[in-house]
Amino acid sequence: MDGTFDIKAEMRDIGAAARAAARELAYASSEQKDMALSAAAQALWDRRAEILEANAADMEDARAKGISGAMLDRLELTEGRVRAMVEGLRAIAAQPDPVGAVLAEWDRPSGLHIRRVRTPIGVIGVIFESRPNVTADAGALCLKAGNAAILRGGSESFRSARAIHACLVDGLRAAALPQAAIQLVPTRDRAAVGEMLGMVEHIDVIVPRGGKSLVARVQAEARVPVFAHLEGIVHIYVDRAADPEKARRVILNAKTRRTGICGAAECLLIDRAYFEAAGAPFIADLIAAGVEVRGDDSLQALPGVVPAGAEDWGREYLDSIIAARLVEGVDGAIEHIRRYGSNHTDCVITEDDAVAARFFERLDSAILMRNVSTQFADGGEFGMGAEIGIATGKLHARGPVGAEQLTSFKYLVEGDGAIRA
Amino acid sequence: MDGTFDIKAEMRDIGAAARAAARELAYASSEQKDMALSAAAQALWDRRAEILEANAADMEDARAKGISGAMLDRLELTEGRVRAMVEGLRAIAAQPDPVGAVLAEWDRPSGLHIRRVRTPIGVIGVIFESRPNVTADAGALCLKAGNAAILRGGSESFRSARAIHACLVDGLRAAALPQAAIQLVPTRDRAAVGEMLGMVEHIDVIVPRGGKSLVARVQAEARVPVFAHLEGIVHIYVDRAADPEKARRVILNAKTRRTGICGAAECLLIDRAYFEAAGAPFIADLIAAGVEVRGDDSLQALPGVVPAGAEDWGREYLDSIIAARLVEGVDGAIEHIRRYGSNHTDCVITEDDAVAARFFERLDSAILMRNVSTQFADGGEFGMGAEIGIATGKLHARGPVGAEQLTSFKYLVEGDGAIRA
Repeated sequence: MDGTFDIKAEMRDIGAAARAAARELAYASSEQKDMALSAAAQALWDRRAEILEANAADMEDARAKGISGAMLDRLELTEGRVRAMVEGLRAIAAQPDPVGAVLAEWDRPSGLHIRRVRTPIGVIGVIFESRPNVTADAGALCLKAGNAAILRGGSESFRSARAIHACLVDGLRAAALPQAAIQLVPTRDRAAVGEMLGMVEHIDVIVPRGGKSLVARVQAEARVPVFAHLEGIVHIYVDRAADPEKARRVILNAKTRRTGICGAAECLLIDRAYFEAAGAPFIADLIAAGVEVRGDDSLQALPGVVPAGAEDWGREYLDSIIAARLVEGVDGAIEHIRRYGSNHTDCVITEDDAVAARFFERLDSAILMRNVSTQFADGGEFGMGAEIGIATGKLHARGPVGAEQLTSFKYLVEGDGAIRA
Repeated sequence: MDGTFDIKAEMRDIGAAARAAARELAYASSEQKDMALSAAAQALWDRRAEILEANAADMEDARAKGISGAMLDRLELTEGRVRAMVEGLRAIAAQPDPVGAVLAEWDRPSGLHIRRVRTPIGVIGVIFESRPNVTADAGALCLKAGNAAILRGGSESFRSARAIHACLVDGLRAAALPQAAIQLVPTRDRAAVGEMLGMVEHIDVIVPRGGKSLVARVQAEARVPVFAHLEGIVHIYVDRAADPEKARRVILNAKTRRTGICGAAECLLIDRAYFEAAGAPFIADLIAAGVEVRGDDSLQALPGVVPAGAEDWGREYLDSIIAARLVEGVDGAIEHIRRYGSNHTDCVITEDDAVAARFFERLDSAILMRNVSTQFADGGEFGMGAEIGIATGKLHARGPVGAEQLTSFKYLVEGDGAIRA
């Protein structure tokens, strides 16, 4: 199909079909949407052999291209990973329908009764990279919120995404919903991304889910609004009033549980007074766990710490590496994070409520934490069932983006012939 | 100042100052912000002679340029209009502070306590045309929500806006808030608008408030996100179950109370069965009130109705003109509005709950109404104190944009050393 594909025309057709489907989805019943999700989950399980076969072909090509181990890991599907997708779809089906919820309701002296109710956004474009499971998660979350989805996966996961998408379409068909409710762009051609970014008439918002270069391209080129998903330059500040044991537990987990996720800690900021009084046993823990700790001058006396360079501040390693430096109290930490952070997730370890309040008040990350592992920065852990990603922008969606964040609202105003004086 | 103004450098300085001010405003107390608003209100009243003098100079220039009567009316300030600005500022000061409000709060089995709290957005750029009062309204709403504002008024209202802005700065000074919290672009040069549209580092969102060509330019050129304020192509559908008296009252008010506002009715859709049974006395009312009614073929038999052309559907007159046509029931009305509407405000006149429910469900205007005048499409009438405009987009802000819609949120997560399994 790739060779003879007229991108502009095909993308326009996909957009028009999505817009038409979105109009129908806007008032599809909760039962119908959940039926589609359950049927899709069943289809994923029933057709797992087919999916794994498609994935094996993708993996073979990827290996032949010499693609890196981390990327191969993201690309690979196993029966366990298919099961996780199935469970994800069922969890989304089990959640309450966000559409139609009355967000606020009030009366006015003029005789008006006003309700603010949740509505779908319309058409959502999701541009992602090599993880094939995003096909299922993103498609399902969009559908749950009554939106049509146009999914554009990475070229390496093309076959896997297509096999998964076929199961989502099975689900839509079983529930008598329009098949264009979830479309997968049927080409590897990167020009399709460029088209999507400009389709202001047919796409209401673009969600880029992937690495820095993908997100940067989307933000630079898009005419369609974007829910920015920047990298997670996650800081942990160890305050002078930190509980040493909590600091050790939280820091080890935040860095090492999984190093490749956006909530993994990337930089430790340690209050100078704390360090002078109590040292930094959590740094020894990290080194013992195989983490490379890149410290500033004051920390290089610690055994195993290697020197940090200027490029280590504000860096997302997504690997067994962490930067570390001393700061002058919470204000020093705030200053560092404002300068180098990415407004994703930042954490303070302290028993002092005033310090925590200052950290929460003066920083503006989507997620601010106190005395908990930053690895909790996740829609599932927040109780949202699933997430399409962690938004770092400030408009509309912020933090974990679940079905609720994929909605808009409208005002319904009723009266009995009221006129304005 | 205009002649020697280095637009690029000056706008960058304005942006950087706004960003710095926004950081301080983000945690300014409610008392401090309200004090600034009250002091600004007082300054506006104390310095009204100066404001009216500046406005007289603007009016003189505008008349010399041969500017139209409607625009002169928007530009003109009177003591009454200054008093309205003063009252607007006081009303905004009296409203609750949206910042810091806990929007949701819950516990997780993992031991996490999660709060979602309102925050300011940051820096808001407001681009408006000839109404000088927008300077006060927009500046005050941005401040109330803890945002820094960069205001760019039309060149005709330059001196008036500058005099009003000086009073806002008096208020900021009285409350010891940064003066860069509300800045007015100090040049008439249109290149300043172009700079603002591209200042993604310094401006978080642009609110264009003005006519179709301004909004179109902003939407086409902006790299900064925009709260779209499209025109109000407001429809009223008279259903077969309409109460004839309510229809007459509502339609006359919706068209004639003020024809120049975005909530004024522009198109009547009349159910064919209703028309055949009951006629259209509301059309006779409109004609008697001096409104030009442009009807489709079926309506031209009515005395005084002139023929509508294809260009009359989907048109915002903002004048004593209305289009009118017969449709086949509520579905015919929905079809017409989907095709020609602007997602601003649309109204159904019916006593039939099922018809109203269908109209509310299948249309996606920011404001949908039943049996009330569309002239109520206004932030003040909704109880928001004041508005910066009516947003017709679907992301973030929608409908009347008051202080609450000028906020974002963040998640505050607390625990007692919780780590992720």
